[in-house]
Amino acid sequence: MPDLGSFPRAQWLKAARRALTAAPHEAFGYGGPHGRVELRTVLADYLARARGVYADPDRIVICSGFVHGLRLMAQVLRERKVRDVAVESYGLDVHWNLLTRAGLRTPALPFDEHGTRTGALRRQGAVLMTPAHQFPLGGALTPDRRTEAVDWARRTGGLILEDDYDGEFRYDRQPVGALQGLDPERVVYLGTASKSLTPGLRLAWMVLPEQLVGDVLAAKGGTDWVSSALDQLTLAEFISSGAYDRHVRSMRLRYRRRRDQLVAALAERAPGIRVSGIAAGLHAVLELPPGTEPSVVQAAAWQGLAVQGLDRFRHPDVPRGRDALVVGYATPTDSAWTGALDALCRALP
Amino acid sequence: MPDLGSFPRAQWLKAARRALTAAPHEAFGYGGPHGRVELRTVLADYLARARGVYADPDRIVICSGFVHGLRLMAQVLRERKVRDVAVESYGLDVHWNLLTRAGLRTPALPFDEHGTRTGALRRQGAVLMTPAHQFPLGGALTPDRRTEAVDWARRTGGLILEDDYDGEFRYDRQPVGALQGLDPERVVYLGTASKSLTPGLRLAWMVLPEQLVGDVLAAKGGTDWVSSALDQLTLAEFISSGAYDRHVRSMRLRYRRRRDQLVAALAERAPGIRVSGIAAGLHAVLELPPGTEPSVVQAAAWQGLAVQGLDRFRHPDVPRGRDALVVGYATPTDSAWTGALDALCRALP
Repeated sequence: MPDLGSFPRAQWLKAARRALTAAPHEAFGYGGPHGRVELRTVLADYLARARGVYADPDRIVICSGFVHGLRLMAQVLRERKVRDVAVESYGLDVHWNLLTRAGLRTPALPFDEHGTRTGALRRQGAVLMTPAHQFPLGGALTPDRRTEAVDWARRTGGLILEDDYDGEFRYDRQPVGALQGLDPERVVYLGTASKSLTPGLRLAWMVLPEQLVGDVLAAKGGTDWVSSALDQLTLAEFISSGAYDRHVRSMRLRYRRRRDQLVAALAERAPGIRVSGIAAGLHAVLELPPGTEPSVVQAAAWQGLAVQGLDRFRHPDVPRGRDALVVGYATPTDSAWTGALDALCRALP
Repeated sequence: MPDLGSFPRAQWLKAARRALTAAPHEAFGYGGPHGRVELRTVLADYLARARGVYADPDRIVICSGFVHGLRLMAQVLRERKVRDVAVESYGLDVHWNLLTRAGLRTPALPFDEHGTRTGALRRQGAVLMTPAHQFPLGGALTPDRRTEAVDWARRTGGLILEDDYDGEFRYDRQPVGALQGLDPERVVYLGTASKSLTPGLRLAWMVLPEQLVGDVLAAKGGTDWVSSALDQLTLAEFISSGAYDRHVRSMRLRYRRRRDQLVAALAERAPGIRVSGIAAGLHAVLELPPGTEPSVVQAAAWQGLAVQGLDRFRHPDVPRGRDALVVGYATPTDSAWTGALDALCRALP
């Protein structure tokens, strides 16, 4: 979760004023499931520029969050008689449960130091991945693993669901481009404003293969799963004015500073703890001595820290792995940061 | 649908500025299914004052539209093993289909000149009604029919679902109070900003019996059916500043003027056409000579008018009734109004 204190209120209000003053009357009526064309057009340009996504406005569908998009894809996949969606060995059980409730099986793919082993894909109808920054392990999917996934999809007709939850936050180099750019007809790209801007907005987007657009719009149906037109228009203006770029850049600097402070604090106060997953994103993985994960998580909780053990994110079919802590360094406000860092170091063995 | 050109943009932006400047940081995080407490508190006060609804903030659940609220109630009713939801003889098939898809039967209740015959309620688990202004027939449910419905609910444990879609718009007297005020523990009150403000916002509310709050929150679940926190906070400020009252008052005057102009135009140019349902709301019913409904609807469409025949709203189990036209006089913008009125008169026999 991003630092909620950093939401750019004044900039957002300026964008709202411009957007709502200029909006056509019909924007205040019942919208359709596609989402405002103003936002889809702006997103198409932004995603191409910032994430290397091939995005025609007609292939973009606005939704209210990643989970909403995943729910729509689950419905479409079932309609296409898909039985299995392969998932990564570590991830969010909220997503697996959603797929299971939709009637899909969720077999886990093995992984190694290069990331998820996409060579293990077989007859599954789809695969759900976090290629830019594996959640929670933290690595980017290597180029040959990406090619392997796309080849699989082309060969079998499978679909890749790309969860690009924090793709703009890369610290050691330019952001890694989206996997979708390798084959827009085989990849469903899911992006969101929740990490880069605020979860309170409930705005996210899907960039779809052409053949899926009709099915997703049909699954979205009716008027009541349509996002607020006012927010959509404001976000479109916020992005097209450059304010979104400036905000992300400023957040990237801020989060990189925090990452650096985290690494430095650990080097000084807990030098035995290896940190990984820090080239990007809003969280890091801290390796712990074997058997210490539960007690460290407990100690951290006593310190008032909301950190999770790595085991919390393990797929049920995957054998227990190494002990580790998943630490989100973006969440605390600036005033709370130093105290949180201090508390973390105290909780570590 | 309301006149989309009348959305009070400047007032809304002022409310947004005040709301977002004052909002606590946590408002920009992941919200819960209940909805922002700021909005629920303001709504509790407003609904009590404006609609006679007994509303504790904890019993209010924010949702994204009437259909969303109805969908949640359908799920809760099924979980409570309800089989039948009685509905009015005329209404929106979108609502009946939603209930049917949820596994509920939707038997139609008979009606007469006093409104829906609530004395015909039997062992149905719930009844869906539009007591303030029957849609589309236009009458308000009379006091003894209201009492009959509440007595039925108390006797059988049934629930009344009150769709108060345009309750603030009453022209001949003070608005008729909500049925919910007669027994908050047996009535689910559903209100919306769609008719009084704008459908583009996707904000609506349910006021629940205490025993249903937990079930509805559970049915709403997860983070992705949560409305935009920014819009909720802005609406709360918009209402508490008095701007919403002023807007509704101004709309009430405007729509009453249009109703008067409609009645006058018909009296002059189509004196044989009887108009009903005009004491309230955003639409009127124009009686047509027998057998002429389809051709008049067609003629109106050729004139560019979006009016519907009454038969469009008839429940499939109800025998065909009288020929009539349902005319929404709120929708056209001010500049389009005179032309629309003219076109309507031309389309009438």
